[in-house]
Amino acid sequence: MISSKLPKIFYGGDYNPEQWDEATHQEDLRMFKIAGIDIATINVFSWAKNQPDEITYHFEWLDELIDSLYESGVYVCLATSTGAHPAWMATKYKDVLRVDRDGRKRKFGGRHNSCPNSPTYRLYSERIAGKLAERYQDHPAVLVWHVSNEYGGECYCDNCERAFRVWLKQRYQNLDNLNKAWNTAFWGHTFYDWDEIVLPSNLSEEWGERRTNFQGISLDYSRFNSDSMLACYQMEYDAIKRYIPDSVVTTNLMGFFKQLDYFKWAKHMDIVSWDSYPSLTTPPSETAMANDLMRGLKDGMPFMLMEQTPSQQNWQPYNSLKRPGVMRLQSYQTVAHGADTVMFFQLRRSIGACEKYHGAVIEHAGHENTRVFREVTQLGQELAKLGDRILDSRVESKVAILFDWENWWAIEKSSGPSVALNYVEQIHKYYAAFYRQNIQVDMISVDTDLSSYEVVVAPVLYMVKPGFANKLETFTKNGGTFVTTFFSGVVNENDLVTVGGYPGELRDLLGIWVEEIDALFPDQKNKMMIKNTFGKLSGEYECGLLCDLLHTEGAEVIAEYGEDFYQGMPSLTRNVFGLGEAYYVASDPETSFLDGLVDKIAADKGIGPTLVTPDGVEVSRRVKDGISYLFVLNFNKEACSYDLGDVQAKDLLTGTDHQGTIQIEERGVQILQVK
Amino acid sequence: MISSKLPKIFYGGDYNPEQWDEATHQEDLRMFKIAGIDIATINVFSWAKNQPDEITYHFEWLDELIDSLYESGVYVCLATSTGAHPAWMATKYKDVLRVDRDGRKRKFGGRHNSCPNSPTYRLYSERIAGKLAERYQDHPAVLVWHVSNEYGGECYCDNCERAFRVWLKQRYQNLDNLNKAWNTAFWGHTFYDWDEIVLPSNLSEEWGERRTNFQGISLDYSRFNSDSMLACYQMEYDAIKRYIPDSVVTTNLMGFFKQLDYFKWAKHMDIVSWDSYPSLTTPPSETAMANDLMRGLKDGMPFMLMEQTPSQQNWQPYNSLKRPGVMRLQSYQTVAHGADTVMFFQLRRSIGACEKYHGAVIEHAGHENTRVFREVTQLGQELAKLGDRILDSRVESKVAILFDWENWWAIEKSSGPSVALNYVEQIHKYYAAFYRQNIQVDMISVDTDLSSYEVVVAPVLYMVKPGFANKLETFTKNGGTFVTTFFSGVVNENDLVTVGGYPGELRDLLGIWVEEIDALFPDQKNKMMIKNTFGKLSGEYECGLLCDLLHTEGAEVIAEYGEDFYQGMPSLTRNVFGLGEAYYVASDPETSFLDGLVDKIAADKGIGPTLVTPDGVEVSRRVKDGISYLFVLNFNKEACSYDLGDVQAKDLLTGTDHQGTIQIEERGVQILQVK
Amino acid sequence: MISSKLPKIFYGGDYNPEQWDEATHQEDLRMFKIAGIDIATINVFSWAKNQPDEITYHFEWLDELIDSLYESGVYVCLATSTGAHPAWMATKYKDVLRVDRDGRKRKFGGRHNSCPNSPTYRLYSERIAGKLAERYQDHPAVLVWHVSNEYGGECYCDNCERAFRVWLKQRYQNLDNLNKAWNTAFWGHTFYDWDEIVLPSNLSEEWGERRTNFQGISLDYSRFNSDSMLACYQMEYDAIKRYIPDSVVTTNLMGFFKQLDYFKWAKHMDIVSWDSYPSLTTPPSETAMANDLMRGLKDGMPFMLMEQTPSQQNWQPYNSLKRPGVMRLQSYQTVAHGADTVMFFQLRRSIGACEKYHGAVIEHAGHENTRVFREVTQLGQELAKLGDRILDSRVESKVAILFDWENWWAIEKSSGPSVALNYVEQIHKYYAAFYRQNIQVDMISVDTDLSSYEVVVAPVLYMVKPGFANKLETFTKNGGTFVTTFFSGVVNENDLVTVGGYPGELRDLLGIWVEEIDALFPDQKNKMMIKNTFGKLSGEYECGLLCDLLHTEGAEVIAEYGEDFYQGMPSLTRNVFGLGEAYYVASDPETSFLDGLVDKIAADKGIGPTLVTPDGVEVSRRVKDGISYLFVLNFNKEACSYDLGDVQAKDLLTGTDHQGTIQIEERGVQILQVK
Repeated sequence: MISSKLPKIFYGGDYNPEQWDEATHQEDLRMFKIAGIDIATINVFSWAKNQPDEITYHFEWLDELIDSLYESGVYVCLATSTGAHPAWMATKYKDVLRVDRDGRKRKFGGRHNSCPNSPTYRLYSERIAGKLAERYQDHPAVLVWHVSNEYGGECYCDNCERAFRVWLKQRYQNLDNLNKAWNTAFWGHTFYDWDEIVLPSNLSEEWGERRTNFQGISLDYSRFNSDSMLACYQMEYDAIKRYIPDSVVTTNLMGFFKQLDYFKWAKHMDIVSWDSYPSLTTPPSETAMANDLMRGLKDGMPFMLMEQTPSQQNWQPYNSLKRPGVMRLQSYQTVAHGADTVMFFQLRRSIGACEKYHGAVIEHAGHENTRVFREVTQLGQELAKLGDRILDSRVESKVAILFDWENWWAIEKSSGPSVALNYVEQIHKYYAAFYRQNIQVDMISVDTDLSSYEVVVAPVLYMVKPGFANKLETFTKNGGTFVTTFFSGVVNENDLVTVGGYPGELRDLLGIWVEEIDALFPDQKNKMMIKNTFGKLSGEYECGLLCDLLHTEGAEVIAEYGEDFYQGMPSLTRNVFGLGEAYYVASDPETSFLDGLVDKIAADKGIGPTLVTPDGVEVSRRVKDGISYLFVLNFNKEACSYDLGDVQAKDLLTGTDHQGTIQIEERGVQILQVK
Repeated sequence: MISSKLPKIFYGGDYNPEQWDEATHQEDLRMFKIAGIDIATINVFSWAKNQPDEITYHFEWLDELIDSLYESGVYVCLATSTGAHPAWMATKYKDVLRVDRDGRKRKFGGRHNSCPNSPTYRLYSERIAGKLAERYQDHPAVLVWHVSNEYGGECYCDNCERAFRVWLKQRYQNLDNLNKAWNTAFWGHTFYDWDEIVLPSNLSEEWGERRTNFQGISLDYSRFNSDSMLACYQMEYDAIKRYIPDSVVTTNLMGFFKQLDYFKWAKHMDIVSWDSYPSLTTPPSETAMANDLMRGLKDGMPFMLMEQTPSQQNWQPYNSLKRPGVMRLQSYQTVAHGADTVMFFQLRRSIGACEKYHGAVIEHAGHENTRVFREVTQLGQELAKLGDRILDSRVESKVAILFDWENWWAIEKSSGPSVALNYVEQIHKYYAAFYRQNIQVDMISVDTDLSSYEVVVAPVLYMVKPGFANKLETFTKNGGTFVTTFFSGVVNENDLVTVGGYPGELRDLLGIWVEEIDALFPDQKNKMMIKNTFGKLSGEYECGLLCDLLHTEGAEVIAEYGEDFYQGMPSLTRNVFGLGEAYYVASDPETSFLDGLVDKIAADKGIGPTLVTPDGVEVSRRVKDGISYLFVLNFNKEACSYDLGDVQAKDLLTGTDHQGTIQIEERGVQILQVK
Repeated sequence: MISSKLPKIFYGGDYNPEQWDEATHQEDLRMFKIAGIDIATINVFSWAKNQPDEITYHFEWLDELIDSLYESGVYVCLATSTGAHPAWMATKYKDVLRVDRDGRKRKFGGRHNSCPNSPTYRLYSERIAGKLAERYQDHPAVLVWHVSNEYGGECYCDNCERAFRVWLKQRYQNLDNLNKAWNTAFWGHTFYDWDEIVLPSNLSEEWGERRTNFQGISLDYSRFNSDSMLACYQMEYDAIKRYIPDSVVTTNLMGFFKQLDYFKWAKHMDIVSWDSYPSLTTPPSETAMANDLMRGLKDGMPFMLMEQTPSQQNWQPYNSLKRPGVMRLQSYQTVAHGADTVMFFQLRRSIGACEKYHGAVIEHAGHENTRVFREVTQLGQELAKLGDRILDSRVESKVAILFDWENWWAIEKSSGPSVALNYVEQIHKYYAAFYRQNIQVDMISVDTDLSSYEVVVAPVLYMVKPGFANKLETFTKNGGTFVTTFFSGVVNENDLVTVGGYPGELRDLLGIWVEEIDALFPDQKNKMMIKNTFGKLSGEYECGLLCDLLHTEGAEVIAEYGEDFYQGMPSLTRNVFGLGEAYYVASDPETSFLDGLVDKIAADKGIGPTLVTPDGVEVSRRVKDGISYLFVLNFNKEACSYDLGDVQAKDLLTGTDHQGTIQIEERGVQILQVK
């Protein structure tokens, strides 16, 4: 439970009354009550208000705000306000301003705008976090601390360049190690002095985000940049803990956000929180996967939904309204996947600047008679009714999908074989195949203990870190099923190829040797021909993107290519390894192939669906104290029905008891308590 | 009449003999005579020639040129030559060079290249304008003064930044007002010192032309930039007037040119002039609309067509030849909409640099035996024949379409709801519906007196300036018909939302409340279902882009949405308001819907077409001394006919008397004098 | 023969053992022997290794490497290592770093990274070339010197700007000449001091590579930039020659590489070498044309294929594997067109940095049991068998196609008439028409002696240099057939239009006057209607892009336009001129038209195909000592056959004697020796 003071799913969101007058604030409090809002994230962007110069701090407004919220029954998620620096700071201390990938020094503007290696920024951001903690350490309203906001971006300034060299020294000790790790003998880039090293940018080794001359340098920059921001976070975290050792401290993450290695970050967070912004066209499986990733960051611990929009966004090209019921459906989906809060950006809409067309609980109309407010109120009532029942319950999965930020960076910085290779897309294809069968999945890191899983899937495991091949071998030897794909086992943690034949360190485990990798044009296809019926797989399936040309070295051939000069070479193999087996999917097959493969693997391991439901109806399970809570979510625009079998269930939202065939309305939600 | 010295439609254009030798100049004079050229715009880009250093001026060549033209019967439109600064000035005084939106200091090159806040530029541009005026104040050849050339572009240099702060102090007096107007509490952007304010650019608040974090800052920059250039113009204007108080001073505008608020500029111009460059694919209604806008800048006063190409352009991707007859047709269209001159860029083609493939009266062949020269000559003869008959005649319209530059900036800087929203496109849709029915339209500003109009249309009246809602209410109350659309009444002049419900200040007038605004993907459509037959409107019409979800508050529902969750909500409403009525078009409908709507409104107000003609045949009317001049323009590639009814008319070009059914040839022109 | 020490087609390629340990190098030597590798290009990117600071040089590793290669039977192509400067040099001497077109100073990174006018770069690059020459002047292994690597790119730094002014002074002597050549009277750009001239870049006169305000300035910059790099090359060349006057010195070119005027460069090279990288979708005729251009650079002298990939590339979007047989086929195609070497990039694949997914003779697997290595080995065996038979043989052509870099630059810097005009594409259309008929073509420059040709084709001869019109007239007068197209004869060498009527200086020769040039939209087409049957041409053919509107002045009309207002105007003309004739193709016709035209011209001149073969089967001929070597290359994926007639031939690869109908396998190669 995040806080025993509020033993329910927190309900609220970002609140910026500093943009409004007192009368409006009072009106807000009235409406919060109607909607059941019980938490407000405040002080996110108030640094300039809090600190008008180097030595002056004004927190009186915050005292009043927190008090008035608390008196009105609204708890506080207190941000440290360092998500954007004050204008005066940028004017006086240029080191807080970033330099972009093109070498351009920024001027004051925007948010997420501070150089993470700026001494000024580090000094004052730590200081204000400490001052806030000191001041509010005993305030009963504050339940969660929210450090800065949506960390991200990159900086290429001279301070970062100097810090990069220090970071490199720590990593490599000497230039000889560094020269080897980066293979600087290539193109005569040998460094004789640390000061010769410059940041990889559009002025040195890169052209945009996905092209670099030296993958090793760029990869280390990505690590360094993530670490630099993490150090900023950590400084504020420590400043808070100095005053409130038992505080709950977080920062709001953003799902599959490329620049920051969240698995590394999460180790330094008391609870994970994140901002979820699906658009009209985002498939529900993608949102589900992002939630599972957020849950996976801290090994399954419940997390906070820190932000979602009640309806509209402003920064997409076409900002659709969320259709009636969709906000509620998405809220419960998040809870189903492990969230213990439902929070919005934002509680009241701004009237000026770029987010004024971003949806809010209280729209520009300013009153409660809006569709959006009614939907928010309905959900608020439901969450109140649910109480603490679901809090701290866990999701249990037999299947894990590996996700690794450094692998992501390495794959997409690669020059060749194909610009069309997108790591997250590949992860999602496998995730979605399990999702379609209502099989729960954990998103795990290379550090996760594998022993509780039956199946581990690691699509495009391009980079194999030290010891990880052994870990996979042990997992499989002990009976696990391991699945990986084309372009795996290629490089080590420095993006240096493991010579001797792909998939390098995974070769024994998979029982294959990949001789060549063909890259297909977007309109070019090959076929995967199932040799014998394999579970529900039979006949031929289309594939594309990349085709590994492989030879078996002990593995069994399940499918072969159907075309081109490598027709007849294996395209799907299975290798028995100890008590387990290891699959290699040598190309990028169509969806129905993956459905068949997942079905076969699940059947072999005796992993069944949580429930069998029609297409578009997701079922997820959270478990606490031996009680299962099934979240049945109908993403279809039509009502439909499914069969509970002989399970006895009670819908917590309606209080109805169910068994046998149940009807679920369009965009409907059922939370079935099952013993 | 622009000048009593030349009582006819001026015929000529830009002339740059400084690129040629004397023999060529003499040949030009010979050919001008053949073609009937009687005015030459000279000295447009001769600053470097006129002033080789800070203190030396050479105008002897200009003396000779003006004399030789005058002796040859050619009058002069005298430019001040400040459209591009000399290389020596850029080399010595870096402040004349602009800084671009990406923060890059320009080097010498191009044209329209001077920083409008450069002290050096202001000093020397004013000085040369004054010197020219002093020198030629008594020269009988000079009919019009042409300040600089096609003002435009933006500068982001430190001088502009300082000037911006001064401009802001004048506008807001104190930072408190400014912080409110820009809503700087958002993202903690509060300014405590004027010097903390930086220009909005790609280095601070913007990403390209259409995205900004702070609409208020960007909007003020657009105003400031337009004002800065206007100040440059004004300095030259005043310098000329110091010597020649009764001179006719202009600068050449460019139609729907986004960066400069021409309504504001026109107040400082003695006559409006503009450069018209339709391409092969520009619909005639678009050119018509631009001409009407230029006429509207000074409340209907005739204007100058300063530039058009006789045939080809060079800067379009595919530079088609103007088909035979098209140049003549476009020339008369311009006159039909209020021009009292027909002028070309240019009289002789350059042989070097980027405009050498831009068409000219005298082509590279250099003689009169070209198609282009023959067409120019024919038109010259016709204009001579027309004499002063049409000069100073006016266009009379019962319908006005509102156009507002600040609204344009605000709409297209908006973040959300849709990137596809294009203000001019929306204006054109309504304009074209009237155009197709040969109903004359005035393009007006928010300052225009509305009392003479029956119908005022203000598509996407997003920004409502102080007092304007009242003005519209008075207009409607007194019997006028007002039409506006989706995304109107949203913000005030600072782009701050008017809270309480859209369309804000227009809510009473329209009798509606807009609760939400849905943005549709490009391939997403809804329908507007006419409830009862409404004029010629019945059945269903496709709509898209944005759909306002509205509730009536007194207005009558004429059409409803046909699809999605807002099916049945109003999509077209009419509100009786005093003696008049106010329409709200809640989405972006297909053309046939607008045709029906315009037809109904016109019928209700008894506004008939100037003439009924087949598709593609435009009719416009200019009136002087009780005599109507009907310009019938056949944009079709085929001849066709139309019916004059019992009107008795005389074609001024042929001298033929007409009545009943008349034939008009392909791309033909008839100027019918009607009593 | 490049070297009498290795009297056969050299076989080998780039080799970078400095990226590997000694054991790997020994393994490489073993495998080179298997594959028949006899030459290694080394030291290409080893500057940092060779010279760790200003005064220290380490060549010991190179001594050992050259020795070990030589002892193993592998000769050396010795690079000077200046293709990328060391990091220490960039850190200490900023002048070596380029400034890009956007004015951004580069930081250390990449390759081809040195400013060509950097004093530091020139000092140290010349010095190391000299030191290498001094050290290895007597080493028997070194057969060829390879200066730097793939020169290219541009620099816009202050040193280049100063050097540009010096270059301009040499070209124009005084500013008056320069102002005229650039037509600076346009837009008032008159220069009064050399120091006012700045480089044309995105900060001054240009927007990207294809748009400029002043074609004259941009054109001179292109000349200057090519010359600047050539001066760098020349300094290294001279340094080598100082020690080894009879050395063979080259630098690797890149076919149709726009930035460098290779005809000018080739004069300073002892032998032309180039890097050929066709992709899966490159038509064989395009590769053939590039080879012919490389051969043409030194008037038909055999050249070196310095680089090709054995299989895959890494820098294309989709890096396909070369299908089985394709590498061999492309190797022989290069030899067929004049190469006396077959060399690869690279002999062993890197394990780190951006080229690790670029194919190599020794792949990451590291052993000989790969498809790629087997194909390399097969070819090595064949080349060994061929011995010196083909060396120094020549290609004989009766048809020449003119290619001119300055014309290329001028056409594509032109503003108007159409952005779609692509010079190389037009060249290729005519080349391909001859190619399809197995008619050999020489690619020639304006300096080439035309007397040995029957037909000279100069598509889009936009720029006519001094004396060249006379040269063409002489050629035609003496019986030659000259063919040119639309947009020809327009400007002189300064891109100034020749007035009086297009095609300017070619008007007499062609007997026509082009009055106007229409640019067509991509989906707009016209037709070329053959008046009477003309060879195999009859009926109508589609054309587009540009349509010249022309009048004959003595020429015969063979085809007319079929549409638009210029229907009936000539679209293909032929002018008898002395004993010869001159064709003008006034638009861009479809392929079948060009096939017919080429067929007619060839028939008229009695030029037959080398052999008649099915589509997709190329035949080229090299001749030595009266013996013809026919290279028959089947680019089809199916076997096919062709008829030798009564020719008696012997296939050098199989030793088989042939006559009559011969079968050739898919992607097969036959080298037929014919007396």
